[in-house]
Amino acid sequence: MNAGVMDLNADLGEGYGIWRLGDDVALLDLVTSANVACGFHAGDPLIIRRTCAAAVDRGVAIGAQVSYRDLAGFGRREMEVDPEELCSDVLYQLGALDGMARSMGGRVSYVKPHGALYNRACRDEEQAEAVVAAVAAFTAAAALPILTLPGSALSRVAARHGVPTVAECFADRAYTPEGTLVPRRRPGAVLHDPDEVAARAVRMATEGVVTTIEGGEVRVGARSVCVHGDTPDAVRIATAVRKALVEAGVTVEPFT
Amino acid sequence: MNAGVMDLNADLGEGYGIWRLGDDVALLDLVTSANVACGFHAGDPLIIRRTCAAAVDRGVAIGAQVSYRDLAGFGRREMEVDPEELCSDVLYQLGALDGMARSMGGRVSYVKPHGALYNRACRDEEQAEAVVAAVAAFTAAAALPILTLPGSALSRVAARHGVPTVAECFADRAYTPEGTLVPRRRPGAVLHDPDEVAARAVRMATEGVVTTIEGGEVRVGARSVCVHGDTPDAVRIATAVRKALVEAGVTVEPFT
Amino acid sequence: MNAGVMDLNADLGEGYGIWRLGDDVALLDLVTSANVACGFHAGDPLIIRRTCAAAVDRGVAIGAQVSYRDLAGFGRREMEVDPEELCSDVLYQLGALDGMARSMGGRVSYVKPHGALYNRACRDEEQAEAVVAAVAAFTAAAALPILTLPGSALSRVAARHGVPTVAECFADRAYTPEGTLVPRRRPGAVLHDPDEVAARAVRMATEGVVTTIEGGEVRVGARSVCVHGDTPDAVRIATAVRKALVEAGVTVEPFT
Amino acid sequence: MNAGVMDLNADLGEGYGIWRLGDDVALLDLVTSANVACGFHAGDPLIIRRTCAAAVDRGVAIGAQVSYRDLAGFGRREMEVDPEELCSDVLYQLGALDGMARSMGGRVSYVKPHGALYNRACRDEEQAEAVVAAVAAFTAAAALPILTLPGSALSRVAARHGVPTVAECFADRAYTPEGTLVPRRRPGAVLHDPDEVAARAVRMATEGVVTTIEGGEVRVGARSVCVHGDTPDAVRIATAVRKALVEAGVTVEPFT
Repeated sequence: MNAGVMDLNADLGEGYGIWRLGDDVALLDLVTSANVACGFHAGDPLIIRRTCAAAVDRGVAIGAQVSYRDLAGFGRREMEVDPEELCSDVLYQLGALDGMARSMGGRVSYVKPHGALYNRACRDEEQAEAVVAAVAAFTAAAALPILTLPGSALSRVAARHGVPTVAECFADRAYTPEGTLVPRRRPGAVLHDPDEVAARAVRMATEGVVTTIEGGEVRVGARSVCVHGDTPDAVRIATAVRKALVEAGVTVEPFT
Repeated sequence: MNAGVMDLNADLGEGYGIWRLGDDVALLDLVTSANVACGFHAGDPLIIRRTCAAAVDRGVAIGAQVSYRDLAGFGRREMEVDPEELCSDVLYQLGALDGMARSMGGRVSYVKPHGALYNRACRDEEQAEAVVAAVAAFTAAAALPILTLPGSALSRVAARHGVPTVAECFADRAYTPEGTLVPRRRPGAVLHDPDEVAARAVRMATEGVVTTIEGGEVRVGARSVCVHGDTPDAVRIATAVRKALVEAGVTVEPFT
Repeated sequence: MNAGVMDLNADLGEGYGIWRLGDDVALLDLVTSANVACGFHAGDPLIIRRTCAAAVDRGVAIGAQVSYRDLAGFGRREMEVDPEELCSDVLYQLGALDGMARSMGGRVSYVKPHGALYNRACRDEEQAEAVVAAVAAFTAAAALPILTLPGSALSRVAARHGVPTVAECFADRAYTPEGTLVPRRRPGAVLHDPDEVAARAVRMATEGVVTTIEGGEVRVGARSVCVHGDTPDAVRIATAVRKALVEAGVTVEPFT
Repeated sequence: MNAGVMDLNADLGEGYGIWRLGDDVALLDLVTSANVACGFHAGDPLIIRRTCAAAVDRGVAIGAQVSYRDLAGFGRREMEVDPEELCSDVLYQLGALDGMARSMGGRVSYVKPHGALYNRACRDEEQAEAVVAAVAAFTAAAALPILTLPGSALSRVAARHGVPTVAECFADRAYTPEGTLVPRRRPGAVLHDPDEVAARAVRMATEGVVTTIEGGEVRVGARSVCVHGDTPDAVRIATAVRKALVEAGVTVEPFT
């Protein structure tokens, strides 16, 4: 049985200095793509370097998890950043992470905005343009793909500029009937039961649909499924998702 | 008459956010190598990008002015940074600047540590090793040259690891009889008269010597002369130095 | 002739580390109230301390220019900060500045939000509540007055919580017919001619009105007039304003 | 039996943004003095505020754990900070924390330098002078006591300036025969067995001596014993220490 192909991505390297967030090593044994923090919301250079080294060791693809400059807010607070500044901020992070990855024998192979920038770029064309401009400028020959929600402003703007996108879905987040994520602050927005999350991931991978928060169904055609790395259950959830995907005959491999 | 070849380097892009330091545009019309701040002691991504763009426009070589992470102290305070951390900090800065430079059609072509890291790496082999390890790891094929004082710990360590160095001298700094710089806090450490600075630069370029603070002479074989960009007289001094070098028959061009 | 009383306030201490912004010493000889940066958008502890010392020497009132935490953006970028965090951020800045002022024989005697926080708190009750809660908590006995635009959300919320406000006007900013400031990005938003600015300040002080950008008039009852400290003409403008106010018989003195 | 009086202090509030370090709430139920991070090595304003609130609720004394400005290095890297800057940095932190504590009905009642600044001020009179000058300037009437090692440069300088000190000892750190701490990097520098640490604390409290790393004894007359809050065993160790002290008849109470 061939039930399709799915990438498994998670946010990694999100410590800073003495502080840690999540069990990077355990997650790197489970995911196929690592969204590595680039220093603006988390990730000091030593953590970045070790995360890249561990990803290269395991053949996990390295993505640049670019963010607003906001350590205190972990990149989760929307900011009115001027597009030219934002484009420069993204370029700076891309270069920094790619330099690290290359020094470890790897390279950055995709881009995924983090937190508030992710959400903002999904609905605001101006900030989406800034992100896309940075990605396009970073590698003139062939732009890196951007991991984003299908139908988002970011994916439309990327298409307009010839920058490829890869659609992702979220196994542990509730969906609205419109196929967008239920905001984190709403009750039920984040799912915690590993079996439930795994079952959703399997349906997303094999049928391309997910049950919405209202009980209906919505299509979520995606090549990558995101699991969160910063929750207490992160490793158990990622383990359950990977196991369920494999058992359902889904080939779990990077999209790059 | 061929009186030799000399590169003229200065620190540039050392503003941050709303703040500016020195007249980058005027200096970029005078120097042949720009030591561009990488964001750790100065230089936000937008300033870095604009500085790289202006350097590329003028054919000025771009060097990575890597520093301790210390915005509040402008990288002028020595820090006991663990070598592995320091190596990662340097790699991060190299990658970030190189990504910017490439997005503007240029690239980083040399490395020059900044401020306290410059001084420390000139005498401390452990921190010098960390800098050299980063430079060696950044471009595995052929390491970028490091601009440093001849005879310094940094130049010795670089030689040991096969990383090239380029010797530099300082036209506007007083020298000890041993050929080291008189520390900034000592009276007379920094020269301000453009004609005097220019005359010293010419002697360094054509005779390879400079008058010490005690009145004697010391050899300073160098392929690049540094002028400071952050003093009120910076543009006048750089103008005088460049003019005097050209008039003395010295070819002013990058070492890269 | 008694043509009323007016305070003259300006933003001061807005350098950081090696960087300076504006001529603090010259302005401190002209203003009666100094809005001192508290370290979040500008102002390192040494600059803060020196600014407090110079203000105390001249009998200039010290106000806390509290801001979003955003050095790279100079506090001019709106941020979606959670109210509880924002309240804590404001309290932290108030305490830090007050400790400095007291160590120099002064004290913080009023609060003025900076940049994007000023604008946001003028129209967003949630963030205004956070600022007011911090001011109320800082001195339980008698809250410090907040300097703000009359009719703003911040002034309404302050009134609701028994926190006093002082109305200010801007001599060098264009006004809409509704009495709000023309946004900085619009042409003509900032006035640069010292004589024109001074004449507007006098009319504001003596008649309580100002000519709008459309040519009409609008009332601006204010006890304090703000002049900007970070423009090249800042000292000339402040000099002209003070001179014109005095010549018009206005008593120039702090509101505290 | 009256076996003396001992204060139990620990570092608290050492998270930042999303990151946490140690179990502050559990430790606040055990210690009598909380060294609260002030934002320079750890501790954002919201964490600071909550830590102060929890300390006030429990009657735990609040101390200012002042540090070098170094989030990335957690204040554990020595820095060559100019004394005037260092004094200002300490004053800023004192004011910020005190403002928070007062808004919660408490106040800062002592000062304890953190990490590298603690070590440096124990042996370097210049930096010790800067810390003492800040403490003396903060409360002109009666300076806050500084918690430090007996015999340190900091305690000598404080005595010279009339600033009180309180001697502390470390239950979970190895001592040299000279009575100084064995540096962290040396094997055996940090003790992890709760029973052993507790037994050492009791001997320090009742006999004023501790076994050195070489097996001998050294005097450690102290009014406060420090337990670390950032180790996995922190709560178990603090629990064991407190229990053992009480059982040995020692009165566990703040020194303030």
